[in-house]
Amino acid sequence: MRLTAITFLALAFAMPAHAQAESAPVTPTSVVAEAAPEEWVSIAPEDLLVMELAPDAEGKARRVVIQLIPPPFSQPWVENIRTLARAHWWDGTSVNRVQDNYVTQWGDVTEEKPLPEGVVAPVTSYTQTIDMGGDPVLAGALTDAFEAVTETRYYWSTGNLDQFPRGDSYADVTVHAYGWTLATSYDTDQIWPIHCYGYVGVGRGYAPDTGTGAELYTIIGQPQRHMDRNLAVVGRIIDGMQYLSSLPRGSGELGFYTEEEAHLRTPIVSVRLASELETPPSYEYLDTRSESFARYVTVRANRNDAFYTVPAGGVDICSVQVPVRPATS
Amino acid sequence: MRLTAITFLALAFAMPAHAQAESAPVTPTSVVAEAAPEEWVSIAPEDLLVMELAPDAEGKARRVVIQLIPPPFSQPWVENIRTLARAHWWDGTSVNRVQDNYVTQWGDVTEEKPLPEGVVAPVTSYTQTIDMGGDPVLAGALTDAFEAVTETRYYWSTGNLDQFPRGDSYADVTVHAYGWTLATSYDTDQIWPIHCYGYVGVGRGYAPDTGTGAELYTIIGQPQRHMDRNLAVVGRIIDGMQYLSSLPRGSGELGFYTEEEAHLRTPIVSVRLASELETPPSYEYLDTRSESFARYVTVRANRNDAFYTVPAGGVDICSVQVPVRPATS
Repeated sequence: MRLTAITFLALAFAMPAHAQAESAPVTPTSVVAEAAPEEWVSIAPEDLLVMELAPDAEGKARRVVIQLIPPPFSQPWVENIRTLARAHWWDGTSVNRVQDNYVTQWGDVTEEKPLPEGVVAPVTSYTQTIDMGGDPVLAGALTDAFEAVTETRYYWSTGNLDQFPRGDSYADVTVHAYGWTLATSYDTDQIWPIHCYGYVGVGRGYAPDTGTGAELYTIIGQPQRHMDRNLAVVGRIIDGMQYLSSLPRGSGELGFYTEEEAHLRTPIVSVRLASELETPPSYEYLDTRSESFARYVTVRANRNDAFYTVPAGGVDICSVQVPVRPATS
Repeated sequence: MRLTAITFLALAFAMPAHAQAESAPVTPTSVVAEAAPEEWVSIAPEDLLVMELAPDAEGKARRVVIQLIPPPFSQPWVENIRTLARAHWWDGTSVNRVQDNYVTQWGDVTEEKPLPEGVVAPVTSYTQTIDMGGDPVLAGALTDAFEAVTETRYYWSTGNLDQFPRGDSYADVTVHAYGWTLATSYDTDQIWPIHCYGYVGVGRGYAPDTGTGAELYTIIGQPQRHMDRNLAVVGRIIDGMQYLSSLPRGSGELGFYTEEEAHLRTPIVSVRLASELETPPSYEYLDTRSESFARYVTVRANRNDAFYTVPAGGVDICSVQVPVRPATS
C-alpha cells in the first residue's frame, strides 16, 4: 500500500483562540478528570512489568512499573522480556548508565550473565506492515490523519495560509492508536512506535544487532527521535519514572558509571510480570479513540487559561502523553 | 512586515541516505570536534551567571553556569537578573521545586525577601519586533528560512511529494541566530526565543504578571513548548545541568517540596556574574552561521553510521542544541 497523503497531528485540532474564550477555561488535567469511566481501558497484568529498585538513601521503596507495548508492535522483544521476567533474570542486576538529557539504562553490568533458553536477538524489523483491512483501530486512526492532510494540501495548493500545517520533525504522519504514539510516512506501508519521554527501548550493539531485551533504557530528556526505527520501542514507564530520571549521571563514556562510581549503580531487587504477583498493581489508560482524548489533545494544543494567554495552536506528539492511572475499579 | 512564507527546519537539510553512504561516516560530535577555531564565538563574562549549589552528599562541588540571552531578546528580565546577581540576592536561597519531565525551579522559598531597588516585573512582551533592515544576522537567517519554504510550497502546490515538508509542531518558522533557537510565524513581525532542554525562564504568577527574574526555572524533560510566548526565556545552562536535572522530585503540588521534604531543598551558596569573579570561567559557542554548524544540523537530521541505519531526514530544533564548550584560548 502506498499512502497517498501526509498529515500533521496539530492541524486536526487547531482551534482559534476566540472560540475557547467563550467557554470556561479547561486544562488537560481537568479534561482527563472529567473523562467517563467507560473511556478508560484496563491494562492486562501480563502487559505490566514491576521493577523494584533497592530503597533510596532514606530507606524508601522505589517501584517502577512498565507497560509493555501491545501487538502488532515489537512483539519478538516483548516476548523475550516476559521470558526474562519469568526467569527472574534481572534480579540482582543494576542501573548502569545515566546520560543527561538522554537515557537511563539497566541490565547485567558484567555482560556475562547467561540468558534464559530461547532469548536471542530477533532478526526482524523495527517497523510493522500496516493492515488496513484486518486492523480497524489503526485503519480508523490513519483515515482521520489522511483527511486532515487532504485539507492541508488543499489550503497549500490554493495559496491559502490562514490555516496551514504544523508538522512533526521526524515523520510525515503521526497518530495515536491503541493508546500508543505511532508514526508512518507517505510512501511506505510501514508504521512504527516512537520514542517519547519515559518510553522504554532495547539496548543493542552496532547494527544489524537488534538486542534481546535484557538490556533496557528509558528516555530521561528531550526524546532523540532519530532513535525511531533504529531501536526497538517495547514499552513505557507508567509509574515511578522519577526513580530513574533523578539518578546521578554517570561520568564515563555515554553516561556509564565508571569503576570509581560503581557505588552509584542502583541495584535492581526484582522484576516481575504483574500476572505473577500475589497482589498485582492495576492500571488503565484513556482510550485514544474516545471523545475525552480528542478534547485532551485540543486543550494541550491550545492552552488558554488564567496562566497561558497565547495558545500554541499545535503540540508535539510526545507532549500528548496518553493518560494512565491506577485502576479505579 | 508580513512574512509571506512559512518554512520547516528539516527541509533545508534533508539529504538522501545514499548521498551520505559514499563518504566516511560522521557524527554530530565529530563535526563539532573538527570545527575551525574561528567558527567559535566567545561568550562575554557579563553574559555568564555562575551558581554554586551546596556540595552533594559526597561533598562534591556543584557549579551551574548559565548563559544569558543576548539582545534583542528578553532584555528587561536579563537586566533584572544582573542586578539580582550583583546584589548577591540569590545567596542563601534554594531550589524549591522539581517536577518530573517539566522544570526545576529556584529562588526565595519564603517569597518575602525584598528585591533590590529597580527590580520589578517588566510590562513588556515575550516577543521581539523583527528588524530586517537593522539586524543583518537575523535577516540572513530568516531569508534562508523563507527560501526553504518557497521551495516547499512549490512542491506541495504541484502535488509533488518526493520532497515534502517536516515541521515544527509549535511555530511556522524556526531559525538559529546569534547562537540561539528562535521561532516566528508567517503572519507577524514578531520573533521569540523558545524553550528547549536546559533553557532558563522566569517564573511568575497568573498573567499579566511577567515575573521579575528572581524566580527562575530550567527545563528538565521534554520541553513543553506551549510555554513559548507565555513566559520569558532568559538563558540556558551550559555547564552543570546534571546538578539540576538529577535532584529528587518534589511530591507537593507542581513538584514543590512539601514541608516534610524541606531537607530536600538544595541550598544555593552564591550566584555571581562571571565578570565579578576573580577567576571567571570562560566559554565559547559554535557560530550558528558557520559551515560547521550547518553540517552539524545536517548530520543530526541524517544519522547514518555504524549504529544508526535509518536516517530520520529531519530533526527537532530543540535536538539541535548549539554546541558550547569551555574556551580553548
